[in-house]
Amino acid sequence: MIEFIDLNREQPYKIFLNKYQQALEKKQKNIEAIAISSFNPKTDEVESRFVNLKYIKDDQWIFFSNYNSNKAEDFAGHNQITGLFFWHQTNTQVRIKATLQKTQSGFSDWHFSKRTKEKNALAISSKQSQKIDSFESIRRGYEEVIKDEELLHQRPNYWGGYSFVPYYFEFWEGQKFRLNKREVFEFDDNKWKTYLLQP
Amino acid sequence: MIEFIDLNREQPYKIFLNKYQQALEKKQKNIEAIAISSFNPKTDEVESRFVNLKYIKDDQWIFFSNYNSNKAEDFAGHNQITGLFFWHQTNTQVRIKATLQKTQSGFSDWHFSKRTKEKNALAISSKQSQKIDSFESIRRGYEEVIKDEELLHQRPNYWGGYSFVPYYFEFWEGQKFRLNKREVFEFDDNKWKTYLLQP
Repeated sequence: MIEFIDLNREQPYKIFLNKYQQALEKKQKNIEAIAISSFNPKTDEVESRFVNLKYIKDDQWIFFSNYNSNKAEDFAGHNQITGLFFWHQTNTQVRIKATLQKTQSGFSDWHFSKRTKEKNALAISSKQSQKIDSFESIRRGYEEVIKDEELLHQRPNYWGGYSFVPYYFEFWEGQKFRLNKREVFEFDDNKWKTYLLQP
Repeated sequence: MIEFIDLNREQPYKIFLNKYQQALEKKQKNIEAIAISSFNPKTDEVESRFVNLKYIKDDQWIFFSNYNSNKAEDFAGHNQITGLFFWHQTNTQVRIKATLQKTQSGFSDWHFSKRTKEKNALAISSKQSQKIDSFESIRRGYEEVIKDEELLHQRPNYWGGYSFVPYYFEFWEGQKFRLNKREVFEFDDNKWKTYLLQP
């Protein structure tokens, strides 16, 4: 589930909320799963992975990550990303282009304090995306941290939020015979412009 | 559904087929939906969208598109892409990095000839990704083409296949407490190397 906080009142946000609620009513699984795609100028490679979108706060879309992970390196080199939802229960795709930055540390602290100790133990013990020898070594690291109550209450500085602000939305609805509906909102000259695209 | 033709016998292909079959048994919807992410050097932007993967033929992963679409422009400028599956019925993510090219025209002809006339009418009538004034104009264009039996049998040169050959796979399996399993295969020095990643 995504938590909406003081949601922005512009039209693409209203449409997003509406489509989200429709998918939720149809019991879409993993409704918060968003594919975040990035570009790493050093390797000249596109990368992509699903994350859980946790909040939309006004116009900021927020997820959390290890700040030393591969994706963090991508974001540091190129802060433009895409976000992609697909809710097959309603045959709806939402495409977003955005620029991204780290959230304020207070926000990361607040979110960390709300999480289960199991999730936090993993955030602390995992050196996300680094190579390992065995899955067992990961489990051992996790089990050491979970016993340490003091450690569990302290957000590590290598873990926190990313917030992106969209400048482009495409709402795609699958239709019979692939006569799909594609509605775009583009932020340009300080306002949202809208148009339709060919299927 | 993805059609497998003379599937490559290397290990990541076997693992992929196995995970695909598990998701299929659990009745995963849109099992062929793959998020293709690309980079456009002209606009300096990452882009991402779902397509249907139609075939895996030996080591070639094939989907079809309009060759004048926005994604075609991205591919022309930067032929490295990512492919991303998420099958929530089995909580499995497959991440792929690959380089991409157009399929041979004979293969596109063959696939075009197998499709329904409704799909082909759309492939012919749509100038994919271009702006339009109304959804009705799209429907009118489609309805004109579908009446023209001769036109429907001729693949237009602006529509055809893209084939990508992976050089990187990550198989991600969601586990309790986010102790997720991440197994990587990387094609290096003419063979597949494998290692695990921290969750």
